[in-house]
Amino acid sequence: MSVLIKNVLVGGKERNIYIAGNLIEAISEAGGIKEKVEEAEFVIDGKGKAAIPGLFNAHTHAAMTLLRGYGDDMPLHEWLSTKIWPVEARMTEEDVYWGTKLACLEMIKSGTIFFNDMYWHWEGSARAVAESGIRAALSAVFIDGFDEAKPKEQIRRNEALYEASKKLPDRIIFALGPHAIYTVSEESLYWVKEFSERNDLLVHIHLSETGEEVEECIKRYGMRPVEFLEGIGFLSSRTIACHCVHLSGKEMELLKKNDVKIVHNPVSNMKLAAGRMLYEGLKKAGLYSNIALGTDGCASNNNLDMFEEMKIASLVHKAFSGDPTSMPAEEAFELATRNAAKMFRLDSGVIEAGRLADVVLLDLKKVELVPNHNLTSNIVYSANGSCVDTVICDGRILMDGRKVEGEEEIKDKASEVAYELVKQ
Amino acid sequence: MSVLIKNVLVGGKERNIYIAGNLIEAISEAGGIKEKVEEAEFVIDGKGKAAIPGLFNAHTHAAMTLLRGYGDDMPLHEWLSTKIWPVEARMTEEDVYWGTKLACLEMIKSGTIFFNDMYWHWEGSARAVAESGIRAALSAVFIDGFDEAKPKEQIRRNEALYEASKKLPDRIIFALGPHAIYTVSEESLYWVKEFSERNDLLVHIHLSETGEEVEECIKRYGMRPVEFLEGIGFLSSRTIACHCVHLSGKEMELLKKNDVKIVHNPVSNMKLAAGRMLYEGLKKAGLYSNIALGTDGCASNNNLDMFEEMKIASLVHKAFSGDPTSMPAEEAFELATRNAAKMFRLDSGVIEAGRLADVVLLDLKKVELVPNHNLTSNIVYSANGSCVDTVICDGRILMDGRKVEGEEEIKDKASEVAYELVKQ
Repeated sequence: MSVLIKNVLVGGKERNIYIAGNLIEAISEAGGIKEKVEEAEFVIDGKGKAAIPGLFNAHTHAAMTLLRGYGDDMPLHEWLSTKIWPVEARMTEEDVYWGTKLACLEMIKSGTIFFNDMYWHWEGSARAVAESGIRAALSAVFIDGFDEAKPKEQIRRNEALYEASKKLPDRIIFALGPHAIYTVSEESLYWVKEFSERNDLLVHIHLSETGEEVEECIKRYGMRPVEFLEGIGFLSSRTIACHCVHLSGKEMELLKKNDVKIVHNPVSNMKLAAGRMLYEGLKKAGLYSNIALGTDGCASNNNLDMFEEMKIASLVHKAFSGDPTSMPAEEAFELATRNAAKMFRLDSGVIEAGRLADVVLLDLKKVELVPNHNLTSNIVYSANGSCVDTVICDGRILMDGRKVEGEEEIKDKASEVAYELVKQ
Repeated sequence: MSVLIKNVLVGGKERNIYIAGNLIEAISEAGGIKEKVEEAEFVIDGKGKAAIPGLFNAHTHAAMTLLRGYGDDMPLHEWLSTKIWPVEARMTEEDVYWGTKLACLEMIKSGTIFFNDMYWHWEGSARAVAESGIRAALSAVFIDGFDEAKPKEQIRRNEALYEASKKLPDRIIFALGPHAIYTVSEESLYWVKEFSERNDLLVHIHLSETGEEVEECIKRYGMRPVEFLEGIGFLSSRTIACHCVHLSGKEMELLKKNDVKIVHNPVSNMKLAAGRMLYEGLKKAGLYSNIALGTDGCASNNNLDMFEEMKIASLVHKAFSGDPTSMPAEEAFELATRNAAKMFRLDSGVIEAGRLADVVLLDLKKVELVPNHNLTSNIVYSANGSCVDTVICDGRILMDGRKVEGEEEIKDKASEVAYELVKQ
């Protein structure tokens, strides 16, 4: 497939972008690449639009779209035990499939071309992603609850999923998903580390999300969570540690030493009152380019709009630090693009010839983007997902003029399974 | 004018809403008010939509849309003195007119039907509001800078504007706008108080926005800002105090005693790192129903989307208090509707027969609103302004199917004047 985007703003200048296969082949002055006009199978008029890299949602539980608005404003444990866990226990692969379809639709409509997922019924998520056309790193929830009978079954399942994933499109990355240190035994964490090393797999884990997690860890292991993981040799440049709210200075150093990747989820942390990630501290520890942004699941956000996440990330650090220069717009934007692409080892996150063709077009006529003194500022502080007009992922047009194929069916079916799930 | 909205969800039930003149005349079961179908000049199909009260933006400087994204991520004083003030000094009435037109357009597109404004060139704002069809309380910036020559001129101007405002549509409320206690002398504040009493006018003031303001006040007057205003008899139920970030317990009591109204601007307070309003403290002081929400101007937000403001308000109090039950969705929604309507003495903010016809229809097919387990939760935590399909204000349809009259011209002209302003 080949796509020509004509007269679109790239870094403030009017350009043509020529996409061949899944790569950006060339970017030229407007009016250039004339010979390509006849070659291109699809021609998009980019006039009045700006091309930006597609956004990355670096931590979510996609199918939780089904639980959007089902439980809010509750104490954490009551929320989990009365609202979330009982419904999750009833979920089938088909439910997860429709929930993930809805999530992919929502992400495409808001300019996100990749998500890093951890959820139940991996096969349901994988099927939804394969159909949707976006990219994802998918991990199955690995929990053994310190029950000696469990690790074997979890290990076998992960080995089988890894094998199965090889037959799926390249857009789908198989990752390991040890849920957290308070739900997974040392033995299982050790297997994850070994298997990830052997197969060069990313490892997606919740880490130091709440104060209780840190306290429990100190009780169980006599040290803080990052120290414990360092002690068992778990940490590496493949580790994607989500939340990282409660870290000591020493723990930040250990994360840096092991080149661990960090996903910041400001909205979820605020909504659940989990605490605040020490962004400035992590930057000082040299970890800036290791940080990406995620929405977390829809039950604790309650949407998947990365524009909103960038804004709130920037605001929360200004507010808590008392410094209005903290996390400027350029940094928030990099967290959601370039940094995340590096984290997931994808040659994306930047609009440049030779890179993967993950291109989002913003409609500069949207009132939130008028006037356009500074596009990055408008993107981070004023836009929302509805400013996205066109989404191209891996060279394929997933949304054009805000139209996504099959949208009505996805919303209808996902609603149906969601209502059925909570009815019981 | 009469409007019939058929088969629309009101409080979870399918209803018809019949609007006659500027009032909601009747709300009946779907299929009811049959006799009105033929009478109604406009019939709107409400199927798949929910009717909610139009939102109130209780503190802004509307024409600052012209400066959206012009200066961000800077220390407060540098931002004001190098970016905002020099441009404001160059603004003409025509600039303010186009900036306010752009703001009205943005607010209509995001379901806001009222704003409380304080800005330069009052006449420009008033002209824009008169044309736009939305409601506003408009105050001119009253600053004397403690210069003895200034109060007279400011007083004369306000008296003249008040007279002029009587000829404008009822939708426009004239209010007094003493900027703040650090820019307005005691003498002028005293005049404002007298004139507001005599003419029953609302008084729009910035109060205790930053720590510096409190320190300066203690230096100048030997007491804290609210104590100072209480001392000169300034406070009343007509006082609309914006920000109220730095309050002592005693000051909260004084606000309660005088039935002062409070506008919370969480995004602006976060972006400028001004501090956090003590929402839970104000609630304990009995002030809950006196609080509304505002975006502040676009230079410190950088949009006018009240859906976003509701979400961030709720998040910030959960995050800072460590209590995930703080400011539940229902409260955030009330701050932006019922509480604000009361504050501005408008019989609006609720969808009920007999009330002003300020009705917003949400498109329940927007992916952010799917599934719909709880509409209020979806509105506060998941929606953004783009979920609004139709806006009716004062009985007049201002947006239908997201189309607003004259939209393209407003965006073009406002951009033009904005670029011209910052060029110099």
